[in-house]
Amino acid sequence: MTTQVPHEVEESPVAGALFVQVQQFYGRHMRAMDEGRVADWTGDFTPDAVFATNARPEPQRGRDEIARNAAAAARQLEEKGALRRHCVTTLEVGEGSSGVLVARMYALISKTVVGSPSELEFVCTCQDELVRQSGRLFIRHRQVYRDDLPRT
Amino acid sequence: MTTQVPHEVEESPVAGALFVQVQQFYGRHMRAMDEGRVADWTGDFTPDAVFATNARPEPQRGRDEIARNAAAAARQLEEKGALRRHCVTTLEVGEGSSGVLVARMYALISKTVVGSPSELEFVCTCQDELVRQSGRLFIRHRQVYRDDLPRT
Amino acid sequence: MTTQVPHEVEESPVAGALFVQVQQFYGRHMRAMDEGRVADWTGDFTPDAVFATNARPEPQRGRDEIARNAAAAARQLEEKGALRRHCVTTLEVGEGSSGVLVARMYALISKTVVGSPSELEFVCTCQDELVRQSGRLFIRHRQVYRDDLPRT
Repeated sequence: MTTQVPHEVEESPVAGALFVQVQQFYGRHMRAMDEGRVADWTGDFTPDAVFATNARPEPQRGRDEIARNAAAAARQLEEKGALRRHCVTTLEVGEGSSGVLVARMYALISKTVVGSPSELEFVCTCQDELVRQSGRLFIRHRQVYRDDLPRT
Repeated sequence: MTTQVPHEVEESPVAGALFVQVQQFYGRHMRAMDEGRVADWTGDFTPDAVFATNARPEPQRGRDEIARNAAAAARQLEEKGALRRHCVTTLEVGEGSSGVLVARMYALISKTVVGSPSELEFVCTCQDELVRQSGRLFIRHRQVYRDDLPRT
Repeated sequence: MTTQVPHEVEESPVAGALFVQVQQFYGRHMRAMDEGRVADWTGDFTPDAVFATNARPEPQRGRDEIARNAAAAARQLEEKGALRRHCVTTLEVGEGSSGVLVARMYALISKTVVGSPSELEFVCTCQDELVRQSGRLFIRHRQVYRDDLPRT
């Protein structure tokens, strides 16, 4: 695993209201992507966010690069007439000593072309570092692993 | 999209305890349906609830009509010896100015005949309007879209 | 159904912070199993826990037996080069009069061999009895049913 996540070493599980805030964040965030609202989705990242995934050879650096790739992905789906859903499950949220939140989740990604059965397109693990600014959450680092691709 | 959802225009995300109450509601609600307890499931709708889905040409109007259709669906599953699970993910809950809650979720619906592998039967988006009466929640409007069927 | 669950007869839904604590518990618990950290996973059971499933003829009795079986399952997966994810959805948590928590959930279990598409391996319902000791949760009884296997 070459793209090591620089997450907090010590974390404690977050409680009640903060956990719910994170859940709400992911509901909105995933729906924005899946409905093609790329700007809404991209706005959930800090300007200098890093998005690493084993589906790309290099991490994406900065909101602008993340936005360009997301727009391209949204266009591809639209051209294929495909709907994709990022179904978030098994969320776990810890808080590091510096106040950074670490959110871990499983995402089941479905893909559907109207008229054909829905398919499980892939299964990912996702680990985000979230920071709070002006009362809302932003992703400053994302590490996604698709289970079907090598981790190198 | 001809069956426009008359949801609240302005919503704010709900916090802590109320979000959890909605989560618990869906746990109970979906389990009631999947276990064939149709009356329990139907009791979660207001008497004048509307249930629109792109799997039917017309919205179902009123708890009685919803109950008849649910009972028929439960009977069909039983005759086929099939188990269905409505797996709720990616929940997001907002509150409108009038106090109505708007819950959005993705449902992965599995279907299993004992002795055969489980299948992803379909993927739905669901948007409910929930009202609070006597300390509990009721669905007054449901809009379901199966991703594999046209939206018209 | 011969392996009747001795769960609490009367339950009331748990609220806010406690529900979130249970959610966090399952995030950690399932991730421990799926990442092959068998000791972490096993540590979530009480020493005298019972784990019944329709995938085995007899309930597993005690943390040691549960640990042996879990280690064997982890080894098998590793030998096949397979990743498994226990995706928890549709959680519902009630509290009995004695303070025991009853957690019900649906688990979508995916299986992936790197280089091949992810698959829905099976769908389970899970019902746990949780007890609180020294501020944390432990499973004292688990009943899992795989939908694709008979319930006898």
